[in-house]
Amino acid sequence: MKTVGILGGGQLARMMALSAAPLGLRFLVLDTAADACAGQFAPMVVGDYTDEAALAEFASKIDVATFDFENVPAESAQWLATRVPVFPSPRALAVAQDRLAEKTLFRELGIPVPDFADIDSRAALDAAVVKLGTPCILKTRRLGYDGKGQFRIKSPADVDAAWDALGAQAGTVGLILEGFVVFQRELSVVAVRGQDGEFRAWPLTENWHVDGVLSASLAPARVDDAMNAVAMSHARKLAEALDYVGVFALELFCRDGVLLANELAPRVHNSGHWTIEGSETSQFQNHLRAVLGLPLGDTRMLGVACMLNWIGAMPDAAAVLGEASGHWHDYGKQPRAGRKVGHATLRADTAHELAEALMRVGAALDRHAQVAPVIARLRD
Amino acid sequence: MKTVGILGGGQLARMMALSAAPLGLRFLVLDTAADACAGQFAPMVVGDYTDEAALAEFASKIDVATFDFENVPAESAQWLATRVPVFPSPRALAVAQDRLAEKTLFRELGIPVPDFADIDSRAALDAAVVKLGTPCILKTRRLGYDGKGQFRIKSPADVDAAWDALGAQAGTVGLILEGFVVFQRELSVVAVRGQDGEFRAWPLTENWHVDGVLSASLAPARVDDAMNAVAMSHARKLAEALDYVGVFALELFCRDGVLLANELAPRVHNSGHWTIEGSETSQFQNHLRAVLGLPLGDTRMLGVACMLNWIGAMPDAAAVLGEASGHWHDYGKQPRAGRKVGHATLRADTAHELAEALMRVGAALDRHAQVAPVIARLRD
Ligand SMILES: Nc1ncnc2c1ncn2[C@@H]1O[C@H](COP(=O)(O)OP(=O)(O)OP(=O)(O)O)[C@@H](O)[C@H]1O
Ligand SMILES: Nc1ncnc2c1ncn2[C@@H]1O[C@H](COP(=O)(O)OP(=O)(O)OP(=O)(O)O)[C@@H](O)[C@H]1O
Repeated sequence: MKTVGILGGGQLARMMALSAAPLGLRFLVLDTAADACAGQFAPMVVGDYTDEAALAEFASKIDVATFDFENVPAESAQWLATRVPVFPSPRALAVAQDRLAEKTLFRELGIPVPDFADIDSRAALDAAVVKLGTPCILKTRRLGYDGKGQFRIKSPADVDAAWDALGAQAGTVGLILEGFVVFQRELSVVAVRGQDGEFRAWPLTENWHVDGVLSASLAPARVDDAMNAVAMSHARKLAEALDYVGVFALELFCRDGVLLANELAPRVHNSGHWTIEGSETSQFQNHLRAVLGLPLGDTRMLGVACMLNWIGAMPDAAAVLGEASGHWHDYGKQPRAGRKVGHATLRADTAHELAEALMRVGAALDRHAQVAPVIARLRD
Repeated sequence: MKTVGILGGGQLARMMALSAAPLGLRFLVLDTAADACAGQFAPMVVGDYTDEAALAEFASKIDVATFDFENVPAESAQWLATRVPVFPSPRALAVAQDRLAEKTLFRELGIPVPDFADIDSRAALDAAVVKLGTPCILKTRRLGYDGKGQFRIKSPADVDAAWDALGAQAGTVGLILEGFVVFQRELSVVAVRGQDGEFRAWPLTENWHVDGVLSASLAPARVDDAMNAVAMSHARKLAEALDYVGVFALELFCRDGVLLANELAPRVHNSGHWTIEGSETSQFQNHLRAVLGLPLGDTRMLGVACMLNWIGAMPDAAAVLGEASGHWHDYGKQPRAGRKVGHATLRADTAHELAEALMRVGAALDRHAQVAPVIARLRD
């Protein structure tokens, strides 16, 4: 029986273990926090990702390693790769960790991206704001997640505040300036690539963010076949260029019919949580199938599915559990403002039924704002 | 967050934990074996079910208790019930543990049963064999599972051998003689009843046994509506009579269009494993929903599903994982003759497609005998 090591012990590691245990796997989680929620279902090594002793103990007990968390230091991933197979590869991880490297690769592959500029000084920022125009967004190149490490520059008057907030990081994690995309939709391709190069994608997903954090996802996204094909082609190109193994998500903005690549998440992704109940094979199981070199599972879905994220604290479960196709996911975390603590997935055979279910759940939980954009899209 | 205690740490406990973790539950498993396979995904207390210290430690750490194993001594269940809520109730458990009590209840409820007789002596056996005729089966009243503790009496000449094999148990676990039913089919109702009395059943399942051990299940069973209604009515009556809470299975023989009740399994059941991928809500999650007093999930299925048991050792996974709707379940157990080590579930939209998939899997794994009766039924 093989033991899979997972760097990071959050909900992604937890759902990987729950979903891929039937493959006959054991799991070992490395996390800095002893109460990481994956630890409720898998043994842990508690330690920093840069702690050589912890990494050595971890490596000695596993057959293969993967990630729940993409911001593991590249050196740690490389060190680990000298001991055990690591998927995705440290190289793919390094590209996806760095917004500049990632956007540069997108562009090389002919995948449209928002305008961007490398920012290594205040002077570079001033020049780039003139060149890209406002609004624009200053972001850290590395270590950002859930909208953290970002500053929106609405007009040139905001440049001072932006530099005050993030300028100190120009010399550490680096900075990038991006043109602000006035998009009509956000979409993501969640896809998997096997060790033999086989590529499969789940149906395209539409996503809604609130304050930079995912709030709701709808699959399949209601776009035409041509746009769907472009999204899938971008994802496949990227996976091949990186010789990627495992599940990843490509986040896209749709502006006036054009898809612009925002970022590559080198792991299972929040916008793919609906695949647990909504697809023949979940992103979590398929990620482990890829990591283990097993045949990939079917990614088709039946009907339509909507995922609602629970941020900060869990709402009452009864409204969702009372729906015929309501599925509840409580990650077993302590409540904390801004923290992803769980999600719900609602499935239905038709868009109309799903909209009705979302109406009921939104009303019961007093979360009209969260369900409204999804319902509006379903009624388009 | 609630902790659910599970008495018994086999594959049923393991699949309960994996399937109901998203409800935000923690689990604690009590088992005599430190390497019980549920222990790979849940903390354990290792001890005998009659060991008061182990039971007390177990009780002190849980909010509610349930079973993976129905042969827990009734006194242990009762003792536990004085500390924490226990579902199903020790009373329901006691009835289901005893083939005589169970068959007596079936008869009281108007549910047809094979002929049977209580056997407390060699003389009683002789008389009963005359009365019931041969072939018949001598079984232990308690502690039988997977066909263990049974002796088939093909002709009166076998009575000596039967008594030699099982007679010593007449004064301990008790014995029962049953008429041998020349059935055309074996069926099971897997159903769930909530604390509020709500009753839901999954589609009727047809089962095939080899040497007394389940080999394959097919859902939905291909029977007419009238027979289906009778089976469901039997299950509901039984659940109500026992004020049952949780999932159970009612095993039925179908002989010449009549359903005879074989036994009640007071727990999630091997013939319900297909519900993990084949139904909106799995038997495992619904069992925990009932035990926790949460709304029950939908039991509908889409298409058709077949479960194949792996006994003794796991076959190669690739053939099943290569099927579009092939799902693999390796319980993480050491191989051992006769041991249930895993199962596979194949789903399809139509009977024809499922038969084709079973043909391919049967050929790839050289298991024609296992898939043949299912394929024949699908082609009926
Ligand atoms: N250039 C942009 N133009 C318009 N909106 C943007 C831009 N960049 C980010 N956003 C908004 O902020 C959200 C989060 O941004 P981004 O994906 O860069 O952050 P992140 O911290 O990596 O988030 P996550 O971890 O959710 O992927 C985006 O989904 C989008 O809604
Ligand atoms: N009276 C009977 N007539 C014909 N066949 C029988 C009879 N009793 C048992 N069998 C056969 O043996 C199988 C196992 O018997 P039974 O269900 O009594 O055993 P068990 O040990 O409780 O098994 P399990 O744990 O699988 O429920 C039945 O499914 C059936 O195939």
